[in-house]
Amino acid sequence: MDNFEFLSPTKIIFGKGTENQVGQEIKKCGAKKVLFHYGGGSIKRSGLYDKIVASLKETGIDFIELGGVQPNPRVSLVREGIKLCRDNGIDFILAVGGGSVIDSSKAIGVGVPYSGDVWDFYAGKAEPKETLSVGVVLTIPAAGSEASKSSVLTNEDGWYKRGLNVEIIRPKFAIMNPELTFTLPPYQTVCGASDIMAHIMERYFTHTPHVDLTDRLCEGTLKTVIRNVPIVLEQPDNYDARAEIMWASTIAHNDLLSTGRVGDWASHGIEHELSGIYDVPHGAGLAVVFPAWMKYVYKEGVDKFVQFAVRVWNVDMDFEDPERTALAGIDRLKAFYKSVGLPTSLKELNIPDDRLEEMADKCTAGDTQTTGNFKKLGKQDVLNILKMML
Amino acid sequence: MDNFEFLSPTKIIFGKGTENQVGQEIKKCGAKKVLFHYGGGSIKRSGLYDKIVASLKETGIDFIELGGVQPNPRVSLVREGIKLCRDNGIDFILAVGGGSVIDSSKAIGVGVPYSGDVWDFYAGKAEPKETLSVGVVLTIPAAGSEASKSSVLTNEDGWYKRGLNVEIIRPKFAIMNPELTFTLPPYQTVCGASDIMAHIMERYFTHTPHVDLTDRLCEGTLKTVIRNVPIVLEQPDNYDARAEIMWASTIAHNDLLSTGRVGDWASHGIEHELSGIYDVPHGAGLAVVFPAWMKYVYKEGVDKFVQFAVRVWNVDMDFEDPERTALAGIDRLKAFYKSVGLPTSLKELNIPDDRLEEMADKCTAGDTQTTGNFKKLGKQDVLNILKMML
Repeated sequence: MDNFEFLSPTKIIFGKGTENQVGQEIKKCGAKKVLFHYGGGSIKRSGLYDKIVASLKETGIDFIELGGVQPNPRVSLVREGIKLCRDNGIDFILAVGGGSVIDSSKAIGVGVPYSGDVWDFYAGKAEPKETLSVGVVLTIPAAGSEASKSSVLTNEDGWYKRGLNVEIIRPKFAIMNPELTFTLPPYQTVCGASDIMAHIMERYFTHTPHVDLTDRLCEGTLKTVIRNVPIVLEQPDNYDARAEIMWASTIAHNDLLSTGRVGDWASHGIEHELSGIYDVPHGAGLAVVFPAWMKYVYKEGVDKFVQFAVRVWNVDMDFEDPERTALAGIDRLKAFYKSVGLPTSLKELNIPDDRLEEMADKCTAGDTQTTGNFKKLGKQDVLNILKMML
Repeated sequence: MDNFEFLSPTKIIFGKGTENQVGQEIKKCGAKKVLFHYGGGSIKRSGLYDKIVASLKETGIDFIELGGVQPNPRVSLVREGIKLCRDNGIDFILAVGGGSVIDSSKAIGVGVPYSGDVWDFYAGKAEPKETLSVGVVLTIPAAGSEASKSSVLTNEDGWYKRGLNVEIIRPKFAIMNPELTFTLPPYQTVCGASDIMAHIMERYFTHTPHVDLTDRLCEGTLKTVIRNVPIVLEQPDNYDARAEIMWASTIAHNDLLSTGRVGDWASHGIEHELSGIYDVPHGAGLAVVFPAWMKYVYKEGVDKFVQFAVRVWNVDMDFEDPERTALAGIDRLKAFYKSVGLPTSLKELNIPDDRLEEMADKCTAGDTQTTGNFKKLGKQDVLNILKMML
């Protein structure tokens, strides 16, 4: 086990009706004026918008609004939000939505006190030292951004999708009511589940030896998602099953599961090239990338893949041929994706084969960097994996 | 799954050599003058005392010392510590040791700003509203007090052992170096493991339906302890195995595992009567109480005990007679305790049978209260369980 620091300071407020506490929670944070940031019209259709406004007004919190966050959130809207905050003396950002809205809010948060352009942080040219506080009302369990130190943004100028990872952007609180996810369409539900599973698997596949506890926590969280996704597809308003997935989304990505171990993250890197160019849902892209990545890298550490197969997928251990067991686990993952309606090929994502080289090039900064840790992948490796996804 | 709030704000600094960061961490907390609180002479013998002093001096932190914390820490020393803090303008308490030192530090912390007697908080007569900050250098993985909201204290006047549970007493930071546990004697090691397992099992046995994720996290943490205890008994300086147990101690009791579910805690209540009167190690007492409690209550929810047997102990499921499976799980727990050198009867703890009634009486406040939730136990129930422990 490696040395580590772990701090997860986001206050989780979980359960039925909790969205009505949002005004009180913001008040506890000492906010003076709030930017209420959200996506499309779904929170207006569902009535959540009205509840939030009522709670803010009831507690006397002054706010302005900025809607319109798109999936794979854009830096252009973030720049607009930064200007709005500066012009209006905003000191707190309330994100109501899923990962895109939260990531956009985090970006605005670090952008407001920064004299340069916010993309600097995502391009790795600068590191944010301060931020406005961010609070969350979560509507989509997927990105885990509600308690994470991550934010992912897309720059339309070149369609670069890049991540920022710093401790200061963890939200102050996350209000999580599973009832708010009852109306998520099946495809969005399973894309979220795929994202959750990916966050766990990126941490799980490591060469760090003797990481029993975090292995077990990873496996347990995966098994929880695997059990509950089919339930919510059959019963979209099953509160408990929605709750399991929602709480798993946070645990998967608040870094508890990576304590003391090195994660991989190549699959995320490759997927960012897909969704950066083709604007496919992140979770759908990950379902296509992961089995291909696994088949490409498993020989670097067959034991870990055997453990994955046996413990997560209940594959009967083949003691005479452990490699068969490892491959059976990968097949089970792929079969699970298919069974819940996720794509497992570029074709199903309607992504043609004519820009694979470009994606492999961008993913490795023109073959000057590698991606991933379980196996360090150069441009040719990424291209080979992309071809396996056709 | 029940509604819940979860906040675990203790910063964990985990790994080799981390104790040398203690001065810096206290400085970050803005402390002016520190009470360095510890137990017997073990930290002097091990050289840890010198390292701590060096780190404090190096960072220019002014401090005074109070050693002498005993296992099952006493309110008398806490009162002494409170006076010392007031007389010397102390604003931060550094606990260097295990659960007893940390619990004593937490008690001093809430006692200093309180005008009444600190025992009020443990007797349930008052609730603390403020506290001095507490930081921890952990030397014994067991109580989980390094990141918990709990403190347990013994009042020599009547030998009452009582707990305080409030959010404000969670430590600011916990420095955890598994190397510091290499010199723990085997009996102290397994008593610690028993305490960790008990914290998980108190949370695990619940009637709250559909708690998949936390069930899985509980099971995974238990399996980690069960795997690694025999390893450290054979190889006391196995860093990784010590690390697994140490990190498990925190996860077991920082309340992550109880999110969304009702815990039981009867076994802790009964054990507090044992160790309050007879001053036995808490973990040893718990190893005696738990199997008896389980056999007494399992019929209230056989399914949960079957799950425990199958998932934690790999008991082969008896589909024709699930109750057999449940009982086999309890037997496996007891056999594990025996195999690592823990007692499983009052006799082995040298506790006679002449004060069982008194303990049952104290545990239920003279039969005016029940203890536990899986089955609410009155005085006669507690007495029955105590008799099963003979």
